[in-house]
Amino acid sequence: MSEKGEIVAAWSERTLIERIRLASQKKSDGLLKSIGDDCCEVALSGSFLISTDTLVDSVHFDNSFHPPHLLGRKSIAVNLSDIAAMGGRPRFVLLSLCLPENIEWDWISTWLDGALEILQEHDCVLIGGDTVKGRSLVLTVTVLGEPVAPGSVYRDGAKEGDSIWVSGPLGSAGGGLELLKYNKNHPDSLDLSSWEALLGAHLNPVPCIGIGMELARSGLISAMQDISDGLATDLAHLCLASEVSAVIHASHLPFLPELSSAAAALNLNIEDLILRSGEDYQLIFTVKSGKEEEFTRLMSEKGKDVYQIGEIRSGRGVILQNDKGSDDISFQGYEH
Amino acid sequence: MSEKGEIVAAWSERTLIERIRLASQKKSDGLLKSIGDDCCEVALSGSFLISTDTLVDSVHFDNSFHPPHLLGRKSIAVNLSDIAAMGGRPRFVLLSLCLPENIEWDWISTWLDGALEILQEHDCVLIGGDTVKGRSLVLTVTVLGEPVAPGSVYRDGAKEGDSIWVSGPLGSAGGGLELLKYNKNHPDSLDLSSWEALLGAHLNPVPCIGIGMELARSGLISAMQDISDGLATDLAHLCLASEVSAVIHASHLPFLPELSSAAAALNLNIEDLILRSGEDYQLIFTVKSGKEEEFTRLMSEKGKDVYQIGEIRSGRGVILQNDKGSDDISFQGYEH
Repeated sequence: MSEKGEIVAAWSERTLIERIRLASQKKSDGLLKSIGDDCCEVALSGSFLISTDTLVDSVHFDNSFHPPHLLGRKSIAVNLSDIAAMGGRPRFVLLSLCLPENIEWDWISTWLDGALEILQEHDCVLIGGDTVKGRSLVLTVTVLGEPVAPGSVYRDGAKEGDSIWVSGPLGSAGGGLELLKYNKNHPDSLDLSSWEALLGAHLNPVPCIGIGMELARSGLISAMQDISDGLATDLAHLCLASEVSAVIHASHLPFLPELSSAAAALNLNIEDLILRSGEDYQLIFTVKSGKEEEFTRLMSEKGKDVYQIGEIRSGRGVILQNDKGSDDISFQGYEH
Repeated sequence: MSEKGEIVAAWSERTLIERIRLASQKKSDGLLKSIGDDCCEVALSGSFLISTDTLVDSVHFDNSFHPPHLLGRKSIAVNLSDIAAMGGRPRFVLLSLCLPENIEWDWISTWLDGALEILQEHDCVLIGGDTVKGRSLVLTVTVLGEPVAPGSVYRDGAKEGDSIWVSGPLGSAGGGLELLKYNKNHPDSLDLSSWEALLGAHLNPVPCIGIGMELARSGLISAMQDISDGLATDLAHLCLASEVSAVIHASHLPFLPELSSAAAALNLNIEDLILRSGEDYQLIFTVKSGKEEEFTRLMSEKGKDVYQIGEIRSGRGVILQNDKGSDDISFQGYEH
């Protein structure tokens, strides 16, 4: 880089760090010490949840069609989803940004706008962060949350006879990604405005925090996780952890009407998108045997749409039943 | 990569992840849920400390002379040092490893050996971790710790009249790094065995956890941080946070005898190494005014060597006094 370029970079990096520092000054219950010391110090009553996730340029996102503001939102959303998947409330976030020398400072600054925006929407506070120089863009987000009573919901609690549910339509993010990739390779050949919900599901996913907490509070849920790698893989993780198998019914799987037209336009198998595409960030969970009626009533009272898709059985595997028969689809989902 | 290369890489990555998973199965007080769910869940009584740090290949370490086993130890040690600098006890660690396709699997596996070894020495447990693919090697470590009674020591508590102390010799890691860099460029021109303590200080730094907890427990300390960017910069951070100035006496600064011979051999200014080189990971702290005698007695009883190097004054800046006069050396330390 030229000397002038170096000066601009040094100035821009300090501006970015200063923005992170200022954002981290926000007060919050239980936050004893935020950015500006060797550690942050936090007091949460009882236990706390923690998850960390790394996003790499060109591996986890495509800069060419992912606007930085929405990517900032998504970088945080996927971490908030991990807290939602335990039924917890997200509280605090730390950022570690590895920035290459040729970074576009407007890009990363707009990314930070998006990240801070979604944090504010969820009353979640950035408490620390650092930036380091590197050869490629690597964004690591660490999120801290607190369980809501009566406690966190793990993956390993599903029992034979429990019913299997999801919190919303499947395959939307996968459909959106396929549309964006097709559009990148064949510009102007599709009218993307017909599929805004699918594009939004990929570009700007909404973490299921409210419903996650409702499910945990209900005490009726035996196991839960989020769907990041596709239903086939994530339900297989839940079954493996719980030492059970699952039967799901193809006709019960919820999806948006838009997905049918997108699959047709792209000549893709819709079942593949629903079962095997990643990043929907819906929750998959099991309702304790005998509690389905109480659960359905509760969800109806709370105005929450949830979808029963199958049942937990003994044994191993994730079996898909459709009108042609049944297949084991365990771990057929998306691999990062 | 060839198809065979891809198979080896896939196998090696699974082996690495499996090693991380197995290491994360260790039970520990307060650990409710480790790796294998959407989040880890931890219960610590009262508050907890958290810090995250990213190391980038060729920026934060030089693979050509840093053995991976020692780099694994150091990657953890620098994070444990952040907990030590608050006077806390490190408890849990999460790893995020961004691995390039051409990674040498023996290298990263040996790195993990070193990381797990130092964690075990400090009774600290790996509770989670993930690996992602990227274009360069980026290692992010997140550490969680708990304060010891009567609580954490921050940077911002120093008051006029307090005395300034360090926990050990300065400049050792900087001297070691200069020796290793010189030796890389001029192979076999130095007998490195004369400077093992300096090399060790750079390659395998020891976090000051025991002394950090003693200092916090004493109740006699008003401010503390670790020295990662050199005394001149880190004391300036402490002074800025505390809104005070510092006077330090050149003749009181502790350093190893080896540092003199290394500076002579490399034709470097020893004062630069002591004041301005980074990564010593000693603690710098202030003892409350009027408590020096009680503090000195306590350290002597505990068998801890500590060194008084100056005093806190009102105003701003970090003033170095030597026989030639005085200079403001604020923020003249190492920049990452």
